[in-house]
Amino acid sequence: MSVGKFIVIEGLEGAGKSSAIALVKKIITEHTEAEPVCTREPGGTPLAEKIRDLVKVADDSDPLCDEAECLLFYAARTQLVANVIKPALAKGQWVLGDRHNLSSLAYQGGGRGLMTLVKSISDISLNGFKPDLTLYLDIDPRIGLTRAAARGELDRIETQKIAFFDRARETFLSFADNDESIIMIDASAPIEQVNQAITEQLAKHLSRLK
Amino acid sequence: MSVGKFIVIEGLEGAGKSSAIALVKKIITEHTEAEPVCTREPGGTPLAEKIRDLVKVADDSDPLCDEAECLLFYAARTQLVANVIKPALAKGQWVLGDRHNLSSLAYQGGGRGLMTLVKSISDISLNGFKPDLTLYLDIDPRIGLTRAAARGELDRIETQKIAFFDRARETFLSFADNDESIIMIDASAPIEQVNQAITEQLAKHLSRLK
Repeated sequence: MSVGKFIVIEGLEGAGKSSAIALVKKIITEHTEAEPVCTREPGGTPLAEKIRDLVKVADDSDPLCDEAECLLFYAARTQLVANVIKPALAKGQWVLGDRHNLSSLAYQGGGRGLMTLVKSISDISLNGFKPDLTLYLDIDPRIGLTRAAARGELDRIETQKIAFFDRARETFLSFADNDESIIMIDASAPIEQVNQAITEQLAKHLSRLK
Repeated sequence: MSVGKFIVIEGLEGAGKSSAIALVKKIITEHTEAEPVCTREPGGTPLAEKIRDLVKVADDSDPLCDEAECLLFYAARTQLVANVIKPALAKGQWVLGDRHNLSSLAYQGGGRGLMTLVKSISDISLNGFKPDLTLYLDIDPRIGLTRAAARGELDRIETQKIAFFDRARETFLSFADNDESIIMIDASAPIEQVNQAITEQLAKHLSRLK
């Protein structure tokens, strides 16, 4: 398996993940003369997309319990890792992920206060597999959610209370503080500045791989 | 929560689970003058049934990895426990399950050789919750599968190799040996004898609850 080629973009809703992904994709494509394999989570395989739908549409008639939500996210993730991410890396391709494990740790672990459950399931399911570089776009949820709301209706997860997102953000920041492979980018800065920070981090990562 | 009222029927395909469930349902209904809440796994809630469909229809285009299969089964199970089984027991109702956790331990744990994974996920998800009485209908898979095949097409899980079912059976038997709440019933005996054994075990369980 090629080392260093699995890159993930993380961040709260409205942090600017889509723009960041487009930029990173462009940089990797120019650098390697090949497009990275792009994934999104939960989802990214036919089965994982169906699981994503289940999580998104659950309603009051059969409310999704915490354990089931967490297990479903990891079912989708292990499916994506086994059938898309690992095979691509094994072929020497780059993989660019729109969210990965850190989202579960932040939202379910930090946001819902289920860190013990999430960490246990994460450890068991992923068995140490993790991104080589994660760019975490940091934003105050009050700003991010206003941006996300302007794009259209918010889904079940996005309509949680603001305190939930504050806890998720704290968790993102805490992981970024304690893991060298997770780089915090200030996503409240002007877009040019955000793009420059992302470009610099990518250049640094690519130079380390040479 | 009422103690003693969660009963589960387990066994390989073709062991006679449906007949056993009908009999146990009749006995409980006569004894308590109320029908038990009947569940089947995977499934038993709207969301859990959708998860059941995902597991059953997975095919070669996106093969279900071991971890995802196991996580999906437990997502369905925790949903059923949280939204059906525990609420029923809390109201004092009896619950009669067509399969529960022991099936995962036998099929995924024993059959696929994933016992460490299954036990870990089981412990984390269910947090010690378990049936008060499990009747395990023991049958040689060579006999059981012949019976099941006569009923129609076998699904993905039922078309596994015979060695898989031998390992699952060994696991069922090993758990029955080591857990007093799991009673082995010889399902290869004539139906009258099987029914009598089930009736006796139920009578014993009911007398203990008085």
